[in-house]
Amino acid sequence: MTTPGPLITLLTDFGSKDNYVGVMKGVILSLCPNARLVDVAHHVPPQDVASAAFLLDRTYGYFPQGTLHLAVVDPGVGTKRRGMVLEISGHTFVTPDNGLLTHILATNGDPNMNTYSIENDSLFLSHCSNTFHGRDVFAPVVARLAAGMAPESVGPRIENPVRFSIPQLKKTSHTLEGRIVYVDHFGNLVSNIPAKDVEVLAEEGEITITLGDTEIKSLSQSYEAANNGGVLAIIDGFNRLEVSIRNGNAAKILNQGIGSMIRVEKTTAGA
Amino acid sequence: MTTPGPLITLLTDFGSKDNYVGVMKGVILSLCPNARLVDVAHHVPPQDVASAAFLLDRTYGYFPQGTLHLAVVDPGVGTKRRGMVLEISGHTFVTPDNGLLTHILATNGDPNMNTYSIENDSLFLSHCSNTFHGRDVFAPVVARLAAGMAPESVGPRIENPVRFSIPQLKKTSHTLEGRIVYVDHFGNLVSNIPAKDVEVLAEEGEITITLGDTEIKSLSQSYEAANNGGVLAIIDGFNRLEVSIRNGNAAKILNQGIGSMIRVEKTTAGA
Amino acid sequence: MTTPGPLITLLTDFGSKDNYVGVMKGVILSLCPNARLVDVAHHVPPQDVASAAFLLDRTYGYFPQGTLHLAVVDPGVGTKRRGMVLEISGHTFVTPDNGLLTHILATNGDPNMNTYSIENDSLFLSHCSNTFHGRDVFAPVVARLAAGMAPESVGPRIENPVRFSIPQLKKTSHTLEGRIVYVDHFGNLVSNIPAKDVEVLAEEGEITITLGDTEIKSLSQSYEAANNGGVLAIIDGFNRLEVSIRNGNAAKILNQGIGSMIRVEKTTAGA
Repeated sequence: MTTPGPLITLLTDFGSKDNYVGVMKGVILSLCPNARLVDVAHHVPPQDVASAAFLLDRTYGYFPQGTLHLAVVDPGVGTKRRGMVLEISGHTFVTPDNGLLTHILATNGDPNMNTYSIENDSLFLSHCSNTFHGRDVFAPVVARLAAGMAPESVGPRIENPVRFSIPQLKKTSHTLEGRIVYVDHFGNLVSNIPAKDVEVLAEEGEITITLGDTEIKSLSQSYEAANNGGVLAIIDGFNRLEVSIRNGNAAKILNQGIGSMIRVEKTTAGA
Repeated sequence: MTTPGPLITLLTDFGSKDNYVGVMKGVILSLCPNARLVDVAHHVPPQDVASAAFLLDRTYGYFPQGTLHLAVVDPGVGTKRRGMVLEISGHTFVTPDNGLLTHILATNGDPNMNTYSIENDSLFLSHCSNTFHGRDVFAPVVARLAAGMAPESVGPRIENPVRFSIPQLKKTSHTLEGRIVYVDHFGNLVSNIPAKDVEVLAEEGEITITLGDTEIKSLSQSYEAANNGGVLAIIDGFNRLEVSIRNGNAAKILNQGIGSMIRVEKTTAGA
Repeated sequence: MTTPGPLITLLTDFGSKDNYVGVMKGVILSLCPNARLVDVAHHVPPQDVASAAFLLDRTYGYFPQGTLHLAVVDPGVGTKRRGMVLEISGHTFVTPDNGLLTHILATNGDPNMNTYSIENDSLFLSHCSNTFHGRDVFAPVVARLAAGMAPESVGPRIENPVRFSIPQLKKTSHTLEGRIVYVDHFGNLVSNIPAKDVEVLAEEGEITITLGDTEIKSLSQSYEAANNGGVLAIIDGFNRLEVSIRNGNAAKILNQGIGSMIRVEKTTAGA
C-alpha cells in the first residue's frame, strides 16, 4: 500500500446547485493531484459564519493528524478582511479571517499554534476575482500547503485573528443557563451546555429543562424514549444538551432557534 | 498502477446541512486511510427506513465485488436495537438491524451469506454516544472491516435479522396489482411491479394501468413519448413499472405516494 | 508518489435524494477502479439543459488537462437523441447530444477538437434501459475512456452536435444589452455580459445598470459595498456582470430570472 495523498476537508455555504464547490476541487486537484477531498457540509445557511464555526469545531477532531481544512463562508469577500492559515494540534485550517475559527481558538489549548495572514498573491489564481476567493485564493493556498509548501510562505504571522463573542454558559450549584447555538437538518436544537455539566446536575437528583414554554422533566437516553411527536432532552452527537421531537422538527414545532435561552434546574435535593 | 483501496459506500438520512456525514468519513479515514468513499444518498427522508432499504437493494449490485456498504437510517439509535454486519454475494453491509436489509435478504439467494451482531464495543469510538452510532459504532466497524478485520470479530452470528413486511405483488393471468414503493426526487412514482411481468402482459395485447383516478392506456418507451405535462407509464431505471409526468412531478400532481395501489390490466385478447 | 488515477467530473440533475449518482459511480468504479470522481453539481433544476450547459462551460477549465467530464441532464433519454463524446483542449466530455456542449463549442476555438456519436452498444451495460442512460450508457463509456479506450471506439465522428441558440450580447458605444442566463443558489442573477465589456464602459465614466424596474448607479467591488438588503451590480465569480442583493435572494426579491433583459448604459461623458 502506498501512502494515501493529503486529506483536505471542505466546508462552505455554496450549496450543491451551482459549480462553486466543483471548481474549487478542480483548482485543488490541479495544484495537488494526489489530494483526497472530503466534503464536510456545503448547505450551511448562506453567510451564517456562526453555524459554520460551530460545525468546524465539532468536526476536525474526527480527522487524522495532518488533515487540512478549507472552510469558506465569506460574506466579506472582496473587502479588506484577511485570509488566514491556522496550524493547531496537527491540523491546518485555511479560511477567511472572519470568526470561523472562534470556537477552535477558544477551546484548543495548543501552545504551539500558529496563525498566518494570507498575503502572498503569487499563490493565488492568476486572475483573482473580488467575489470568489474560495476558488481564487483559499483553494490554491490549501492545495499548495497540502503539496508541502511551508505555511510561512503565505504571509506574516498574526496574533489577533477575528473572534466573535460566544454565548457563555451561566452555572450555579442548582442551575445551568445556556443558549441554542445550532439547529441541525432534523430540526434538533443544539445548546452550548456540555454533556458533563448536565450529567453532574442529573446525578444528584431530578432535573427540569426549560426552553421557551416547554418544560422537560428528565434527560432521555434515546430518541425513542419519547412517544411519536413527544419532546425530549438528550445528550446529542455534538456531546451537548439538545432538545428534540421524536420523528419531528423541534425548531419548527417549538418555534425556537439559535439564540433561544435554555435552562436546566435541579428540582429535587437528590439522594 | 497500485491496487486502489477498499471501496465503502454511504447511505444515510443525515442530509448535507450538518457535519454528520463528514465526521463519519473522518472516523473511517482515521482507521482505514486508503479507503475510497462513495456517497449513495444522504437525503433519504428522515427516519424513512423503507425508502433507504429500497435504495440499498437497488444500488449495491452496481458496485464491484468486495465493496462495503454503510447504511445508517436509525430512528432506534440508543435503544436495544442491534447493529449488524451482513456478508452476501461478495458485498458487506454494516447497518442498524432495523429492516434496512429487508429487500436484499428477500431477493438475494446466496446460500453462503452470513449475518453478525455488532457487540464488540472495543471496536467503537472510545466515547460512544447514545445518539450517533453512525459515527461511534458503524463507521469504525466498517473501516476496520475494510482494513481487513474478520467479520467474526464484531460479534456472534445471528439468524434472525429484522425484516419489515414488503407489499406483495398480486398476479392473475389478466392483471397485476402492486403498490408504489418509492418516490424519487423528480416525483416519479416507482412501483413494486417488475418489468418482466408488465412485459408479459403487454406482449399479449393492450394494457391499461390504473393509479388512483388515473388510467394510462399504454406503456411508453421514453419520457418524451408523452406531451409536456402528460402522464405516462414506463419501465424505469429501477427496472420497475413507474408512473411519471413529463417534465412534471407525478407524486404532487396526481397526489399519490408510497403505498398507493397500482393495477395493470390486459384490456384486449391480444393477437 | 504514484500517479493518481484518471479524474472524472459528474454534473447531473439527479439530486441527492435518490441513488442515481451513486449507481453511476458504482458502474464507473467497476470498469475503471482507479478513477477519481469529483461532483460538480447534481441539483441542476430537473431537465434544465441550459443551466447545465452554462455550468459545464464555466467549470471544465479549472480542472487539469486529461480530465473527463460526464454531464447528464437528459430529458430525451430513450428517444433517438444521440450520445456523444467531445475531445477539446485536453478535456473529454461524455454527454447526451442535446445542447449541453453549446457554450463550449461556441467559445473554445480548438481546431483539433473531435466529436463522436456513441453507437457501439457493446460498451453499454448488458441490460440497457430506456430511462437511465446515465448509468447504462454514459457511465460505462466515460469509465472505458478513462481506462484508456480510444474515443474512436464509441462510434463514428460527427460534425453537427446539437446546439441551442444563445442570447447574444448587443453592444453600442454607449450601451450593453444582455440577458440573465443563470441564477445561483444564493439567488444571484448572472448575466451573459462579460466583465471586460462592462469595465470598458465603466472606465470612461459613470454607468447605470437596469434590470426590470431596478436601476443600479455603479459597479460594486464587493458584496459588502451595499447595505444589508441593498441591490448591487458586481463582476462575479463567473467573470460576468451579476445583480445581487446583499444577504438576500435577488431573484426572488426582484422577481427576475433566466431570460430577463439587463442593460448597461454610460451615463456621463467621462473624463
